[in-house]
Amino acid sequence: MRFLSQIFQPVITIPKGAKIKNTEITCKSQKLLMECGLVRPTSSGLFTILPLARRSITKLENIIHHCLEEVGAQRLSLPCLTSAKLWKQSGRIDSVGPELIQVEDRHGKRYLLAPTHEEAIADLVADIGPLSYKQLPFLLYQIGNKYRDEHRPKHGLLRSREFSMLDAYSIHASDACATNTYNVVTDAYKKIFRTLDLPVHRVQAPPGDMGGRLSHEWQLPAAAGEDALAVCPSCHHAARARQPGACERCGADTCAVNSIEVGHTFVLGARYSEPLLAGFVAPDASTAPVHMACYGIGVTRLLSASVEALSSEKALRWPAAIAPYSAVVIGPKEGSKEWSAHGFDRVQDVARRVEQNAFRDDVIVDDRHQLTIGKRLMMADRMGYPHIVVCGRGALEAPPRYELFRSGDAEPRALDLNELLATLADQRIRQPVDAGADYGESAG
Amino acid sequence: MRFLSQIFQPVITIPKGAKIKNTEITCKSQKLLMECGLVRPTSSGLFTILPLARRSITKLENIIHHCLEEVGAQRLSLPCLTSAKLWKQSGRIDSVGPELIQVEDRHGKRYLLAPTHEEAIADLVADIGPLSYKQLPFLLYQIGNKYRDEHRPKHGLLRSREFSMLDAYSIHASDACATNTYNVVTDAYKKIFRTLDLPVHRVQAPPGDMGGRLSHEWQLPAAAGEDALAVCPSCHHAARARQPGACERCGADTCAVNSIEVGHTFVLGARYSEPLLAGFVAPDASTAPVHMACYGIGVTRLLSASVEALSSEKALRWPAAIAPYSAVVIGPKEGSKEWSAHGFDRVQDVARRVEQNAFRDDVIVDDRHQLTIGKRLMMADRMGYPHIVVCGRGALEAPPRYELFRSGDAEPRALDLNELLATLADQRIRQPVDAGADYGESAG
Repeated sequence: MRFLSQIFQPVITIPKGAKIKNTEITCKSQKLLMECGLVRPTSSGLFTILPLARRSITKLENIIHHCLEEVGAQRLSLPCLTSAKLWKQSGRIDSVGPELIQVEDRHGKRYLLAPTHEEAIADLVADIGPLSYKQLPFLLYQIGNKYRDEHRPKHGLLRSREFSMLDAYSIHASDACATNTYNVVTDAYKKIFRTLDLPVHRVQAPPGDMGGRLSHEWQLPAAAGEDALAVCPSCHHAARARQPGACERCGADTCAVNSIEVGHTFVLGARYSEPLLAGFVAPDASTAPVHMACYGIGVTRLLSASVEALSSEKALRWPAAIAPYSAVVIGPKEGSKEWSAHGFDRVQDVARRVEQNAFRDDVIVDDRHQLTIGKRLMMADRMGYPHIVVCGRGALEAPPRYELFRSGDAEPRALDLNELLATLADQRIRQPVDAGADYGESAG
Repeated sequence: MRFLSQIFQPVITIPKGAKIKNTEITCKSQKLLMECGLVRPTSSGLFTILPLARRSITKLENIIHHCLEEVGAQRLSLPCLTSAKLWKQSGRIDSVGPELIQVEDRHGKRYLLAPTHEEAIADLVADIGPLSYKQLPFLLYQIGNKYRDEHRPKHGLLRSREFSMLDAYSIHASDACATNTYNVVTDAYKKIFRTLDLPVHRVQAPPGDMGGRLSHEWQLPAAAGEDALAVCPSCHHAARARQPGACERCGADTCAVNSIEVGHTFVLGARYSEPLLAGFVAPDASTAPVHMACYGIGVTRLLSASVEALSSEKALRWPAAIAPYSAVVIGPKEGSKEWSAHGFDRVQDVARRVEQNAFRDDVIVDDRHQLTIGKRLMMADRMGYPHIVVCGRGALEAPPRYELFRSGDAEPRALDLNELLATLADQRIRQPVDAGADYGESAG
């Protein structure tokens, strides 16, 4: 159990129209995450992730780890500093160009802060020497910092210059095998988004700078999004950059929505393995470049995109699985009748029981007793904790009753302890989840 | 349960005297970690951490998270790109000098890839505006990449240019409070090293470039270490850069040992808060710079240092709590009598029972059946798995018997399944541990 008075959460108020570190406030997730003391810019497009948001990121990382390890992905860590030579070999040093942050070491050797690691993975495969087809396929991934020198960083964590990303890479002896693994990994993606209960659409997309023969974007509808989708309300089919009209799959009328790209996946073929000489030896002893596929999810972007999609202008809302804490418990104001009757002990007892029965290591107590219950309730609602438990006047009744506020409920519910615990145990996050609505259908 | 045939582990043999990516092989951890397919250099002083070593790092990170959160530390993430301006304010841009990797963005603004984050933390405190003394103290930490452009990277992960570090920072209204928290955090350090069962010595050290009034190095004895200690075998007191002689604490004869610095802790006072204007408001309404302390552990360095200290020239040895897997299970060779009798099913059953009874999600099966048991046993010993279980000829007996090899045991033990499970359950890592030998005594 943690106490809110001890959490480092520098709450601020941003005046209308104010710039923070030379950056305009252009969307609600950016404003709310800063005002609630969760994220703080250090410079244009660079951010400190403060403790409560860091907790959310860790929860999100754990969901991603779980869903990827389950399909056999193996975690590794590649250096962020990638030799510029590799990007010359692939030709991307020119095509990606000014978005690359380049570095020279004390001996004059050039590196870049990698925005992605296709070259590094292909070089790793090449460096091992030609693999036998028997060693293929394999699927590797990492979660870590990536860099992109955006011309105009904006929308806070939605378009920053240093960001956390999941990037996975699969290596194959054939295109058929790559396609097979691609489907397995994109199913894991669907599971990640279902666990978050987010309506993320998989839409076919042009491969762009990355190359390859097939690619999908993973798009989350949100008004502040910079991409446009035509979504079919009937079959959930979604397509990119199209005018609303008849759904190409079922014929129903589609709707236009703005959306945020939270992931991108590619079947790359030999786009990187050929220039970087990453080969394998086939059963007939011939040598050929390996087939690759790659898979990215912007971790810090997904966090902020989900907040952007779910929140109002006035209050944060999170996917329940990644809220900083699943529940907050608020006790009486110091000096009140309730305080005199059972003081802080009762509040801690209730919080402990909620931890034991529903949200292990995931309950916070708002122990700022100098503030009224109403004030703390307002702040808890603004923070978007999925469950708010108030030990107020009702706790003096026999049996004592507690108020439970949940996002989405019109009215709080007054419950005795057993009812409270039963209700919360029912809300426990059963993650990651296989069942549920599937928004991940595509044209491709 | 995982299968070794599916693990990405590119085993190589490094010829004597060979250079890898322009780097000489100068110590045994460097050679063994590369040869066993755990770590691979990409460039001078830069390394890919391959899946089995990545598992070890994750275990080590979890121990650190646990021990720090237990004393109230709150995790955050600061950007790796720190504005050069802050390092000008502190004066360190010149004193650290050529070891800093500097970067210019597309608008000409200068950043550096932070080797440490004192300036960034002080700037965060300054940016919040003067804190009230009531908001102090707090203790923040992160685990992430750090950068140092070493003139001559060497010894593999022991002296690399991109490395993972725990760095923690505490912020206080007084020196007394800073000293108090310093003691709490250094106790958490002792717990981390006890959990790893490593004889890490806390020794008083000059503050150097970092500044401040008090500092300790955390030193792990190892022949390849670049530091020298005088260690007292009687009271465990250790001192830096001294000739062996009488122990300054108990008078017994000391021994000279080489050692590796795996951590460094500092009471900083106002060294950073003063130039960076990080102040607080005292009860009497006066404003003063906050007091700071900082705490570092080289995560990738600690991993390689522990391997360096424990391994022989021929075989890896790990602290049991961070071995890539706690146990490996080896089954019969394909086509053997044992294989015909119970094939692979028995091996998987045994592995499953070992997982359930002792090492949850931490058992690997060496399913490379085309290799003899002897060959796989040799490889498992070289990898340093703490427990090796062989389902060989003994599994045909009634009751079936399995061989258990443990590092340090002179002979394997033949055990029936219940004996095997009981023995292994007893070896389960109870981490992190409070009890045990305490090497962390200091002169300071």
